[in-house]
Amino acid sequence: MLSLTTIAAAIGLLAATGATQDVSTYVNAAVPTGVPVAGNYTGDLRPQIHFSPPKFFMNDPNGMFVDANGTWHVYYQYNPTGSTAGNQHWGHATSQDLYHWINQPIALFPPTKNTPVFSGSAVIDVNNTSGFFPNQNNGVVAITTLAHYNEDGTAGTQTQAIAYSHDGGFTFQYYNGNPVINSASSQFRDPKVIWYEDHWVAVISYAQEFVIGFFTSPDLKSWTHASNFSTYGLLGTQYECPNIVQIPVRDFKTKEKTDTKFLLTISAQPGAPLGGSITEYFPGDFNGTHFTPLDGATRLTDFAKDNYAAQYFYGNTPDGNAINLGWASNWQYAQQVPTGNREGWRSSLTLPRVNYLTYAPRIGLIMVDEVYDLSPVMDQELNSTKMGNGDVVVDYSGVDSGALYVEVNVTNINTRQIQQYTTLNITFSNPNTGEALYTGFYFGGDTPFFINRGAVKGFDNIFFTDKFSVSPSTSTSPSSSPLPDRTANWTMKAVIDRSILEVFINQGVHSATVLFFPEGEPLSQCRVAAQDMPSGTEVSVAVWGLKSAWAKYQNEQGTVLGNVTMSATNSTSSGSAGQKRHMVYEGKFSY
Amino acid sequence: MLSLTTIAAAIGLLAATGATQDVSTYVNAAVPTGVPVAGNYTGDLRPQIHFSPPKFFMNDPNGMFVDANGTWHVYYQYNPTGSTAGNQHWGHATSQDLYHWINQPIALFPPTKNTPVFSGSAVIDVNNTSGFFPNQNNGVVAITTLAHYNEDGTAGTQTQAIAYSHDGGFTFQYYNGNPVINSASSQFRDPKVIWYEDHWVAVISYAQEFVIGFFTSPDLKSWTHASNFSTYGLLGTQYECPNIVQIPVRDFKTKEKTDTKFLLTISAQPGAPLGGSITEYFPGDFNGTHFTPLDGATRLTDFAKDNYAAQYFYGNTPDGNAINLGWASNWQYAQQVPTGNREGWRSSLTLPRVNYLTYAPRIGLIMVDEVYDLSPVMDQELNSTKMGNGDVVVDYSGVDSGALYVEVNVTNINTRQIQQYTTLNITFSNPNTGEALYTGFYFGGDTPFFINRGAVKGFDNIFFTDKFSVSPSTSTSPSSSPLPDRTANWTMKAVIDRSILEVFINQGVHSATVLFFPEGEPLSQCRVAAQDMPSGTEVSVAVWGLKSAWAKYQNEQGTVLGNVTMSATNSTSSGSAGQKRHMVYEGKFSY
Repeated sequence: MLSLTTIAAAIGLLAATGATQDVSTYVNAAVPTGVPVAGNYTGDLRPQIHFSPPKFFMNDPNGMFVDANGTWHVYYQYNPTGSTAGNQHWGHATSQDLYHWINQPIALFPPTKNTPVFSGSAVIDVNNTSGFFPNQNNGVVAITTLAHYNEDGTAGTQTQAIAYSHDGGFTFQYYNGNPVINSASSQFRDPKVIWYEDHWVAVISYAQEFVIGFFTSPDLKSWTHASNFSTYGLLGTQYECPNIVQIPVRDFKTKEKTDTKFLLTISAQPGAPLGGSITEYFPGDFNGTHFTPLDGATRLTDFAKDNYAAQYFYGNTPDGNAINLGWASNWQYAQQVPTGNREGWRSSLTLPRVNYLTYAPRIGLIMVDEVYDLSPVMDQELNSTKMGNGDVVVDYSGVDSGALYVEVNVTNINTRQIQQYTTLNITFSNPNTGEALYTGFYFGGDTPFFINRGAVKGFDNIFFTDKFSVSPSTSTSPSSSPLPDRTANWTMKAVIDRSILEVFINQGVHSATVLFFPEGEPLSQCRVAAQDMPSGTEVSVAVWGLKSAWAKYQNEQGTVLGNVTMSATNSTSSGSAGQKRHMVYEGKFSY
Repeated sequence: MLSLTTIAAAIGLLAATGATQDVSTYVNAAVPTGVPVAGNYTGDLRPQIHFSPPKFFMNDPNGMFVDANGTWHVYYQYNPTGSTAGNQHWGHATSQDLYHWINQPIALFPPTKNTPVFSGSAVIDVNNTSGFFPNQNNGVVAITTLAHYNEDGTAGTQTQAIAYSHDGGFTFQYYNGNPVINSASSQFRDPKVIWYEDHWVAVISYAQEFVIGFFTSPDLKSWTHASNFSTYGLLGTQYECPNIVQIPVRDFKTKEKTDTKFLLTISAQPGAPLGGSITEYFPGDFNGTHFTPLDGATRLTDFAKDNYAAQYFYGNTPDGNAINLGWASNWQYAQQVPTGNREGWRSSLTLPRVNYLTYAPRIGLIMVDEVYDLSPVMDQELNSTKMGNGDVVVDYSGVDSGALYVEVNVTNINTRQIQQYTTLNITFSNPNTGEALYTGFYFGGDTPFFINRGAVKGFDNIFFTDKFSVSPSTSTSPSSSPLPDRTANWTMKAVIDRSILEVFINQGVHSATVLFFPEGEPLSQCRVAAQDMPSGTEVSVAVWGLKSAWAKYQNEQGTVLGNVTMSATNSTSSGSAGQKRHMVYEGKFSY
């Protein structure tokens, strides 16, 4: 591995070289091409095991795929010139484990200054259906929405364009036959492409008509409208970022695969019940052209309000499960959160999440949402306790990352002896400042799990809701027997990472993503307290520190420089040594 | 009208008389029969133009109908012996205007001590289909769920029973052929009955199967299962309190009726997105046996979390619109709110709401939810202002009721000149205590309307969410032209009533019900402030005091005694003078 100093020197070199190359006239000169954007990941609010952009503003994840070597690629809606939304490019990062991310050079640039590159997806065209890749089986094609704005700032059309990459997804050229799907609409966007048996399928949102259009193509260039999925679930004000993914159905206890279904996800905003942005999902059948939901139910991916626009990775995942990353924010306050003013960046992605479907009693098929294998970032165990009633206090001020993994299991609750204040409280706080993030189970009511971020004081916003809850009742949870069984089991897995909490309740039957912003010192104490538990109840608590996934890339100034050795380590045989590191625009197609 | 002293004397007489009558042995001796429960409506938290029970705990409205004389009858789930749920009876109140309510004697009593009377509905059997009313056209039949509990407290079956009233709904006798719909389920409840062309139709919830069963009957006694409506919308953990109602479709501007549809409402809880309880609705077609929703969308009646289990009145409403009252609470905290300890009562009903359907651009049919004619409680206008930017402050500490009606209209906003902080804030506060309830429009974002009750401090509960919002964007609101029209209109109508706020946005396109509990002195100041409005914007503000609907029934001690003259004023020709004022149980049917 190159030393940090060497990397820094290399970046200087490449940046200088880049400046002399043939840069498209449409690329903003202020936006770096050919080199990653450098960033500082040491801020008190900066998550250490989540992906966040080196600086400035990020929103939706885009173009996610895993290549044949097991490298995970994430692109993202990126404003490389400011800490609010706008000027959308596709930022890019790669990872071997979904926690350690290498910032890569920006991958897609606006073809004109008035044509930001909106959300989209990417596929590996193994069989060269597109014809772009005569001599390779690892060609990458991105399909994205180009959002055309008029000179007066009003919205023009949104059309779908493709760009291809000969070097495995690092640099792209726009296809000269764009747009591949034209439209007269200013609200037609966010294509997500999958391969179905013998053709490509794209789901694209007619955002303000509440229609997800299904399109088919043999070659990623010519597309045919096949069907519409319309006016389902919570509408909000618009549909965005649809996904269709083949997903296993598993027995909840054995994890054995029993069936395969398709899952359609839709992100809706503004106008979610909790305010702003939300993602809903529909399990169903798909025949290559038409999607049919299994029932009329509306199911939500998260029970809080900071997980939007999640996308599934294209490509073979380790066990066939679907793996997603979401944008961990909400348009109601994404551009106001204090990370911008305090640390110069805004938004992270969620933890990587593993999804499959399972049958829940009465409810039908539900998505299970578990955190992806954390072992690459697991550090030492700070506490392991088994108790009935009582409490455990863990001081984690000595954990450099400030990030923890907490697992709590409650077994053998005699549900008939639950009292009004039978509770399991898991509280993250700072004893000096009094700021606290409250979570826990309130067994005495309808057994809801709750989160309260109202006592963390670093952000004041009329839309920053304080309290969230979900009712993982025994009768809806596959992990437990229906009432009146006399015992019930409850679990919580949680990752807290400086300014983001993610919880997974009852093995992922419910999950939530919650931003919080301490005003003062970081939160540093975790307390787990069991109260009024029926006799015989066993509460097990385990707390681990997590290792920063970013610290290893920092130089002495705390700056993460990103990958400047991409050409040597990742480029393919088709990439010439002198290949331009910025995106160039092929041909004369005019937007 | 009788003087208060006379009424008090009469009550004493009747109570004494009642005690000597033939009381069913199953009736709890602690529960008054034949006389209304007396209550004190003077507390700082007690709503003055909303219905709340004289004392103790109320939940769902039941049995609602309007009789041929225009008298509105509301029954309600009532625990007459405590301030938390349980021991369910049907309380009863009547009104001529939907604001002034007369507390009536309890109408339905548990037939055994282990058989609480759960929610249900009532109809007027004008044509004596039931045979109960050979000589009258105003017979009332209630259909309700009897919830059978075993001696050890575990749940037995829930079955549907009818009771009939010869005196217009004041006293009932259970039918001796009960149950009219038997079941082996412990989760089968909340029948709502309507008349459809030539037969009765009941919707009843198979609560934990997410099924609304449709049943038909010629006579209210024999019922046939006709169809199921299953697994639609947000499921939560159970479906409760379904309604089916014929409802006009109106042009939003002219209010002309253009069509007639059916509306199915379902209340789901626990597990709503905001936590706890929620009500959703489905516009559709109904052919007498089967309901077909018009689309797959999930639509919510309220954007806050304190409106559940609303029921539509049976009978002819003034203009053919559907009129409902909901339970203004949420099971997450209904039994903890401080009105119980501080004032001895818990829960009110919502304001009466007038519903019709209208076509919203893109969205399809939506329910419009407007407050029923407030003129019976309107008092003097406290302020009327037209302004651009600026503010209006109204001290309403002199309004005896503590209740206000506020109307704000914003017209001619140049939507292209909206700035980041273009806002219209409507704040209710107490300058001495600093407690405040914030509402308003934040035009700079996705134009959401917001409510924040977090600065009202009299109630601390992990589920008492602070912030709510909705996005009444121009493109979803029938009242406004779609963007990019350069002007837009916004309206808010609000009633604040001591501990409950109800808002109606854009002529009822969105509405919300929000409880709040001041810790100290009542809120007493209303401030409307317009900031950074584009030039040309007109903001009109009007604030009226509201008259207490309860004060006129209070004696010198502040006690509302309820109606003791019912027999003379309301009983029908079929009611004998000596008719028992408590419910008796006819025959030997055993539960």
